[in-house]
Amino acid sequence: MTDWSKGAAWMGGEIIPIAEAKIHVMDWGLTRSDITYDVVPVKDGAFFRLPDYLDRFEASMASMRLAPGVTREALRAALHEMVAKTGLRDAYCSMTAARGVPLIHGSRDPRNCGNHLYAWVVPYVHVVKPDVLDRGAKLWIAKSVRRIPEDSVNPRAKNYHWGDMTAALFEALDEGYDTVALLDHQGNVTEGPGFNVFCVSGGRVITSDHGVLHGVTRKTVLDMCAEIGLPTEMRPLPLEEMMGSDEVFLSTSGGGVAPMVEVAGRIFGNGRPGPVSERLHELYWEWTKRAENREDIAYAA
Amino acid sequence: MTDWSKGAAWMGGEIIPIAEAKIHVMDWGLTRSDITYDVVPVKDGAFFRLPDYLDRFEASMASMRLAPGVTREALRAALHEMVAKTGLRDAYCSMTAARGVPLIHGSRDPRNCGNHLYAWVVPYVHVVKPDVLDRGAKLWIAKSVRRIPEDSVNPRAKNYHWGDMTAALFEALDEGYDTVALLDHQGNVTEGPGFNVFCVSGGRVITSDHGVLHGVTRKTVLDMCAEIGLPTEMRPLPLEEMMGSDEVFLSTSGGGVAPMVEVAGRIFGNGRPGPVSERLHELYWEWTKRAENREDIAYAA
Repeated sequence: MTDWSKGAAWMGGEIIPIAEAKIHVMDWGLTRSDITYDVVPVKDGAFFRLPDYLDRFEASMASMRLAPGVTREALRAALHEMVAKTGLRDAYCSMTAARGVPLIHGSRDPRNCGNHLYAWVVPYVHVVKPDVLDRGAKLWIAKSVRRIPEDSVNPRAKNYHWGDMTAALFEALDEGYDTVALLDHQGNVTEGPGFNVFCVSGGRVITSDHGVLHGVTRKTVLDMCAEIGLPTEMRPLPLEEMMGSDEVFLSTSGGGVAPMVEVAGRIFGNGRPGPVSERLHELYWEWTKRAENREDIAYAA
Repeated sequence: MTDWSKGAAWMGGEIIPIAEAKIHVMDWGLTRSDITYDVVPVKDGAFFRLPDYLDRFEASMASMRLAPGVTREALRAALHEMVAKTGLRDAYCSMTAARGVPLIHGSRDPRNCGNHLYAWVVPYVHVVKPDVLDRGAKLWIAKSVRRIPEDSVNPRAKNYHWGDMTAALFEALDEGYDTVALLDHQGNVTEGPGFNVFCVSGGRVITSDHGVLHGVTRKTVLDMCAEIGLPTEMRPLPLEEMMGSDEVFLSTSGGGVAPMVEVAGRIFGNGRPGPVSERLHELYWEWTKRAENREDIAYAA
């Protein structure tokens, strides 16, 4: 008996147990990281803002010239069917488009590969764990490595080029921190492994506009700020400015808004989440309950 | 009946047909490109300079803190057995170490994953095809994208972060070129998809010392130059200098020395490989025949 509650995948048009979801070792999605993906959260039995995630995924594929031949409606239907099959009501649902293998052995031509699309779903993942948030999460700023610049790899096409992120994460863990943000080559704060970074300064909410993924949760934060009347700024964010700000928080599809209480040795808010971060954290979960943001999944009775 | 001549893989301690060689879609080797590899050529029934490839692979794993728990001798024995099984006498033999999946679902800690090592072999691959070399190979210089800088991702730990390479390759193919080299952010020539770049200027052989993989074929070129008394320089190579040089060639474990006859609109040597490139091209194949560079494979009788 398959334990579907561990997750499932949709590959080659079929739904299979997550344990069987594999790609070939010669797929350029692996050997060239020639691949794009997106992750939509499922909360309380519904996709959250699925059209936004599908929009971005389609834009990523187009910018990388990936054409796996799956329509938006076919993908949407597959995601619904796959999540329903698992019964998971809170889940981390990933969709991926890969270059595939060359149609002729030894070809080095990316135009001549069998592009393909697959998806998988597993129980919900918190990028910053709830118990870490409860005791106060600590963000490191990487010293040994800089974020891959956007004229090398386009960060808006969501990608698996995480070498800089992983090196930074090792550094943070060695230093006793929970996670890490990276600077660009000009000293501005960009993003970290799985999240965007925000600071709050004099009631204004600030996040980078370049060198970063335009995260859907980042967009949700900006939309929430508009709703509650908080002014926002999207622009380069120098590290010094963030270190002198009132609050720092992260945004991620894996957990929403994550307040930080320490950044690279500086304690914020006496070690407790600031009022803006806290309010946005709560509001994010409220937004996941609103009908206009939800696409209900038809689970078996 | 398995057609082993298409290739084989060594995974989990077993030799399997290449078609069955797959890794899980949630392996961080894929989803974070948290993975390193090396490719050793097999020529005329022997590995070429295998100790050099193993040295580099071990250094790459150490720098990425990957510890799959396979000794050098176990890996060497597995590569021999795997290639012997296929009967392939000219082959492209890859070894890969990947982060694996977290031991606890949802963990974001790279220290807490099941690192693993696998290998595979397929018929020999020419990065620049012999028929392209015969008609004169054309190298493009990427305009839209710059090589990932080495303070973002270490290029000496051989990696699958090829987003910049792939974007550059699309640009080159769109322009009617065969392959492409990338510049760093200072305008120096770095490398391309699967090769190092050299130029010859006034009898001196020049290649970049930074922002590039220290390729084993690059090393072989430098060693061959020493043997035949050609002076070499390893230093930043400005594009303008290369465009004004006498000859340009590429070095790759997939084909050795590949002379270029056109670079971004400039014809070199009246459209024929220059004398130094041609000599090194021939000498490379001669070096693959020398006993001291070979490690013979014990094929079944």
